Amino acid sequence: MHPAQNIPQEALPQLLEKYREFVKEELFPIDLKVVQGPFKSFLPILNELRAKAKELGLFAPHLSTQDGGVGLNLVQFAQVSEILGQSPIGHYVFNCAAPDIGNMELLHLFGTEAQQSTWLKPLQKGEIRSCFAMTEPKMPGSNPVHLGTIAHREGNDYVINGHKWFTTAADGAKFTIVMALTNPEAENPYQRASMLLVPLDNPGYQLIRNIPIMGEAGEDYLSHGEVKFENCRVPVSNLIGKEGQGFALAQERLGPGRIHHCMRWIGICERVFDLMCKRAISRQLDPGKALAEKQTIQNWIAESRAEIKASRLMVMDTAQKMQELGAKAVKEDISTIKFFVADVLMKVIDRAIQVHGALGITDDTLLSFWYRHERGARIYDGPDEVHKSALARSILKNYSGK
Amino acid sequence: MHPAQNIPQEALPQLLEKYREFVKEELFPIDLKVVQGPFKSFLPILNELRAKAKELGLFAPHLSTQDGGVGLNLVQFAQVSEILGQSPIGHYVFNCAAPDIGNMELLHLFGTEAQQSTWLKPLQKGEIRSCFAMTEPKMPGSNPVHLGTIAHREGNDYVINGHKWFTTAADGAKFTIVMALTNPEAENPYQRASMLLVPLDNPGYQLIRNIPIMGEAGEDYLSHGEVKFENCRVPVSNLIGKEGQGFALAQERLGPGRIHHCMRWIGICERVFDLMCKRAISRQLDPGKALAEKQTIQNWIAESRAEIKASRLMVMDTAQKMQELGAKAVKEDISTIKFFVADVLMKVIDRAIQVHGALGITDDTLLSFWYRHERGARIYDGPDEVHKSALARSILKNYSGK
Amino acid sequence: MHPAQNIPQEALPQLLEKYREFVKEELFPIDLKVVQGPFKSFLPILNELRAKAKELGLFAPHLSTQDGGVGLNLVQFAQVSEILGQSPIGHYVFNCAAPDIGNMELLHLFGTEAQQSTWLKPLQKGEIRSCFAMTEPKMPGSNPVHLGTIAHREGNDYVINGHKWFTTAADGAKFTIVMALTNPEAENPYQRASMLLVPLDNPGYQLIRNIPIMGEAGEDYLSHGEVKFENCRVPVSNLIGKEGQGFALAQERLGPGRIHHCMRWIGICERVFDLMCKRAISRQLDPGKALAEKQTIQNWIAESRAEIKASRLMVMDTAQKMQELGAKAVKEDISTIKFFVADVLMKVIDRAIQVHGALGITDDTLLSFWYRHERGARIYDGPDEVHKSALARSILKNYSGK
Amino acid sequence: MHPAQNIPQEALPQLLEKYREFVKEELFPIDLKVVQGPFKSFLPILNELRAKAKELGLFAPHLSTQDGGVGLNLVQFAQVSEILGQSPIGHYVFNCAAPDIGNMELLHLFGTEAQQSTWLKPLQKGEIRSCFAMTEPKMPGSNPVHLGTIAHREGNDYVINGHKWFTTAADGAKFTIVMALTNPEAENPYQRASMLLVPLDNPGYQLIRNIPIMGEAGEDYLSHGEVKFENCRVPVSNLIGKEGQGFALAQERLGPGRIHHCMRWIGICERVFDLMCKRAISRQLDPGKALAEKQTIQNWIAESRAEIKASRLMVMDTAQKMQELGAKAVKEDISTIKFFVADVLMKVIDRAIQVHGALGITDDTLLSFWYRHERGARIYDGPDEVHKSALARSILKNYSGK
Repeated sequence: MHPAQNIPQEALPQLLEKYREFVKEELFPIDLKVVQGPFKSFLPILNELRAKAKELGLFAPHLSTQDGGVGLNLVQFAQVSEILGQSPIGHYVFNCAAPDIGNMELLHLFGTEAQQSTWLKPLQKGEIRSCFAMTEPKMPGSNPVHLGTIAHREGNDYVINGHKWFTTAADGAKFTIVMALTNPEAENPYQRASMLLVPLDNPGYQLIRNIPIMGEAGEDYLSHGEVKFENCRVPVSNLIGKEGQGFALAQERLGPGRIHHCMRWIGICERVFDLMCKRAISRQLDPGKALAEKQTIQNWIAESRAEIKASRLMVMDTAQKMQELGAKAVKEDISTIKFFVADVLMKVIDRAIQVHGALGITDDTLLSFWYRHERGARIYDGPDEVHKSALARSILKNYSGK
Repeated sequence: MHPAQNIPQEALPQLLEKYREFVKEELFPIDLKVVQGPFKSFLPILNELRAKAKELGLFAPHLSTQDGGVGLNLVQFAQVSEILGQSPIGHYVFNCAAPDIGNMELLHLFGTEAQQSTWLKPLQKGEIRSCFAMTEPKMPGSNPVHLGTIAHREGNDYVINGHKWFTTAADGAKFTIVMALTNPEAENPYQRASMLLVPLDNPGYQLIRNIPIMGEAGEDYLSHGEVKFENCRVPVSNLIGKEGQGFALAQERLGPGRIHHCMRWIGICERVFDLMCKRAISRQLDPGKALAEKQTIQNWIAESRAEIKASRLMVMDTAQKMQELGAKAVKEDISTIKFFVADVLMKVIDRAIQVHGALGITDDTLLSFWYRHERGARIYDGPDEVHKSALARSILKNYSGK
Repeated sequence: MHPAQNIPQEALPQLLEKYREFVKEELFPIDLKVVQGPFKSFLPILNELRAKAKELGLFAPHLSTQDGGVGLNLVQFAQVSEILGQSPIGHYVFNCAAPDIGNMELLHLFGTEAQQSTWLKPLQKGEIRSCFAMTEPKMPGSNPVHLGTIAHREGNDYVINGHKWFTTAADGAKFTIVMALTNPEAENPYQRASMLLVPLDNPGYQLIRNIPIMGEAGEDYLSHGEVKFENCRVPVSNLIGKEGQGFALAQERLGPGRIHHCMRWIGICERVFDLMCKRAISRQLDPGKALAEKQTIQNWIAESRAEIKASRLMVMDTAQKMQELGAKAVKEDISTIKFFVADVLMKVIDRAIQVHGALGITDDTLLSFWYRHERGARIYDGPDEVHKSALARSILKNYSGK
Repeated sequence: MHPAQNIPQEALPQLLEKYREFVKEELFPIDLKVVQGPFKSFLPILNELRAKAKELGLFAPHLSTQDGGVGLNLVQFAQVSEILGQSPIGHYVFNCAAPDIGNMELLHLFGTEAQQSTWLKPLQKGEIRSCFAMTEPKMPGSNPVHLGTIAHREGNDYVINGHKWFTTAADGAKFTIVMALTNPEAENPYQRASMLLVPLDNPGYQLIRNIPIMGEAGEDYLSHGEVKFENCRVPVSNLIGKEGQGFALAQERLGPGRIHHCMRWIGICERVFDLMCKRAISRQLDPGKALAEKQTIQNWIAESRAEIKASRLMVMDTAQKMQELGAKAVKEDISTIKFFVADVLMKVIDRAIQVHGALGITDDTLLSFWYRHERGARIYDGPDEVHKSALARSILKNYSGK
């Protein structure tokens, strides 16, 4: 996963060009239809595209070559990720989409050999999908210490009981990693939870529904599950890492996860920006007088371009620093890009909708999909407010002694 | 329609209380389910509610008593409209929803006796629904002079050909009023179009689709049609007003229409504000520590309250002035509230979503419905940018001589 | 002070017209020069204007006729105040400027007969000026409970020691009212302070400096003093109201004070708006192509107009309610207008500067004066943040039982 | 000037540390007093500091070593410039302040040998100061093609007549470069103007006034002159470059000039940010409860940090690109940073003022100076609106063929 450096830097431009071409030629023509669904009906086509990606040596850009991937380091991957982000099916086709990519990272770093051979391998190959059950409807997601899900130890098993939601892509997944309290009495609240791998054919597990989100329940990869664990029994060997490490692993998982989201958002911004410019040029207010001549439209284009550029430079800077210095060194940077880029994303989408007029609110363009499905960007993986406070408090620590 | 004064002012508070109670007791418990649809399955329940409203003397608040209504003037109606706006089915149940209300006004003022007895009467009673076909996919809606739809005179008929969309609630309607060029060569571009009444069982008319908007095509009242007129033949007696008056009538129709939207939006704001406050109080970040204690949340509540209050005062001021001085006197005021209140609406909804966290983006509250379905508020009946420019140019006229 | 109703409502339009004319004919031609100062050199001219105002029956609009004023109630005064606010010397010339107006109100309501005859009478006639010493450099102004100034009782005297700043218009004033702790040990923190009247020729009082604010120390009415009380001895009879009532009286004084500020700010907005429109029309980008044709400029004009209108309606609504129901009933309303109108004020000024280009940052127009001297509007009498939190908490109280 | 590479990259960190130390130890303790003025009274101290800077090898960072400078390339200089920008006298002390730095660049690139030996050399050594007369009160500065100043050729002289303002630092300067029409009839409007060097002891030149800007006329380096040329005669040899090249040279001069401003603004942002954090930590709302605990304050700190970071990365990126590819390649980038960073600057200053409360609007901190003197940042060298439109139109050119 993100090996130090497998691909020589000078080969990158040509590789990026290949991704660009693939996305433009193969994904742009179909992605609007795919998100209109039903998603499962497109699985054959998507599998063909995955095969094509493999053939071209583009599949799984984040994995090392020995794991069947392209072997890009984090900074290189960031650039690919932006390209893939331009299509809502980009990361899926190249098998580097959340939540699978986070689970691959977790199992790669902390999985036992058995876990890796049974679950990680087929996941890396794109043969199965997975999900991650952490958020709970009754607990504030912004505080991962609060959990109602409990995994009680009974002999060589854990017995899990709990209620989760926003278990992304649960529908159709083969296993989930679930966050549950194993040591609810531990003094340190950050050592109370553990991560457990649960195969989804377990009778104690139930997918209650694909949550209707912003007008759509969706299905399969494009869905978010509400799930229940009732006396769900798994062997102790399904523990990821050690008992009580759940919170630490979650942090480990969420840091890069947030970078990945930001990369993808920039890709969305670029596609949306492109749609906005095309519309501004092609829409005639009067014969020969394009919408693009209006100064308000020009303002939006200029501001969007500036903000997207700022976003990209900040994300790339964070990726570079993380690659060199590790995840801990970029805690502030990650909070920064999380709220900054999410805000830019929503502003750019909103402007593009306004430029499109009535067409912008229909489902005839991708704008509606992203307007709805990325509103969550300012909420998931820590809402804006939590990241802002965290960043500020971290900065202010340097001042408190003065 | 909005008679000068039928209801004595002192009776208003009690009447408003009745509307409040009806909305809270009868509509709030079911409205989320109704918008989740399918809408048609709820028609029996909604018809019962209409019967109840009639019984209580609350039905059709905007109509004179001789037309079966409550007889409220515009200012009184504004206050009722805000109350109804708190529920997405409020105006429908009380038969004062767009586009019917606009069509009632048109036919009341300009319809022939035959048109009134055949179409207006059952519309006023809520026995049929109607729609209004003006916006065209290929023309900028912000400029109503540009139309591609043509009504060619042949003997005693008009033959209509054209393509329209955002024909709200076409699905299930009995007739539409269509805007078409009857005098495309008229020197004055504002005298080229006319309004024609088309019964929707006309073989030349076709509902192509309910447009998927923000994730939902919807149906019946909760839908927006894309429609076609192909050699659609109607008798000359179906003309509303005179030939060439289409633009003038549209202005007549849109002015109050925009006030009605603004009133409704304030109702939405109030419901959303209420949801936001309830969530802020009930969501615990830590045991005993409610979300409401966070200053950011307090800022949003305070700013929302201020902006809603400003909106209401401006809308009421405009309604008052319109009632006293007529539609022309409030052209600037209407532009002002159109963009101001639409902006407030979207900001309040957005804050409420953020306060709700993950729940806010699900369809488990009304927030998602309004976030999606009111994004159009900044576009329909003239986008923000058009109203701002119109207002500014009107103001600047007073300066140009200086 | 603001008698219930002295002036018949139907006489108001004509009266307002007189104020408008006076401000336009007498103040607009000189006010830029006066604020450029030195202020004292303009006192003879300003005194002539006051005499003229008296002659015309316009002087002291807020005072009852028996006190030598015009006898306007609060709502009527609000309309005059907006007109006067268009000029930075308007309220001064008509003797209804802060801090004198607040002190007149205090002494009118709570002053002893002796205090009224010695201090209130000449203040009402405009023969002397006064100031109000409350804010302290070392204490957060947003929390009036925290005071470092102490008035120690010694026999029939209070001996005051303390350090104040932002004692507006101290330079040239004849007396100040000072807020000091007289009962520092009182259990209820709101009953620790009292208000004392201090003649400024008292040897224990010292004006340290006129604080340089935003580039200018100013002088006289247009200044803010930093002052010291060192063993400043005043007789017990100089107490305003009762011992321990300081906080209560301050609330009494600040409520209407905030309304007065808001009224004045709207006047500023209108003058600034007028400057902006004139500039937009007169500035040519190319021969025959005025700045006003730019859509961005039009946006600013439209948005400013909408926001000013919203501000006015809210302030008038608050004044009406206060007049009918008293100060307590409008606590939320006052917080609302305080932060809403201050924000609008700064936005309108900022846009007008941008429209003026380089000229806008010079002192050749009033824009620079207001940009600098009204930045404090978002801070004095409670910063935005305090009013927002107060409003939100007050609203949320209605929810806490639910 | 900005030689390709004189200082090895690895020596930079230590050099930057030296600048940081100098600015902190030598400038921070006095800069508030210096800007409070009168500036000329501080010239002896400032000259000592310049001597010290020379001794330490830090003087004139932008000049090559053979010209007596440090020899930094643009990217290296950018980093120094940010450090110097933290103090309002930083660039002055190190002799790299506008308008001198721009004039040095002009004369270095386009000056004749005589011009260089007479004017450039002493300018580079800091022995004299210069100014640049371009903006005119009657012409929109945003359109440099419009000029009223004319230089008429008479024999071997030009005779200049015109009226300029915002001739920064004219007071005390030895020469100006003036932009004047020499070929008013040239078909191409971009070839009508020329640049002429005018020694300021020329009897045809007059400094009318130091323009009062935001409350201060200032003097010397800290002033902006309004100047007149009346039959001001200079020999043809005072032409910079060729006749008709004025516009081209201005572009040449303004491009890097805008980068220099942006670098400096980021320095201001950092100092202001530091003041804001210190205040947040040290101000107690209640004993033991610092302002920093308020979430609104935390939001401002976080947002400011994010925006400053974005600004720095964009400016550095632009500097890097300009260094590698030249000024033409970064035209879009320069427009981008010009409006983006100016906006961030004003937002950060505004938040810091609000955090400081009453203190923030006094002249007792640097905040007031920058709030007033940098409001022009959104106007000079092209207002926001012009840069946004320019950027958008440039982007849209790529779309017009589609």
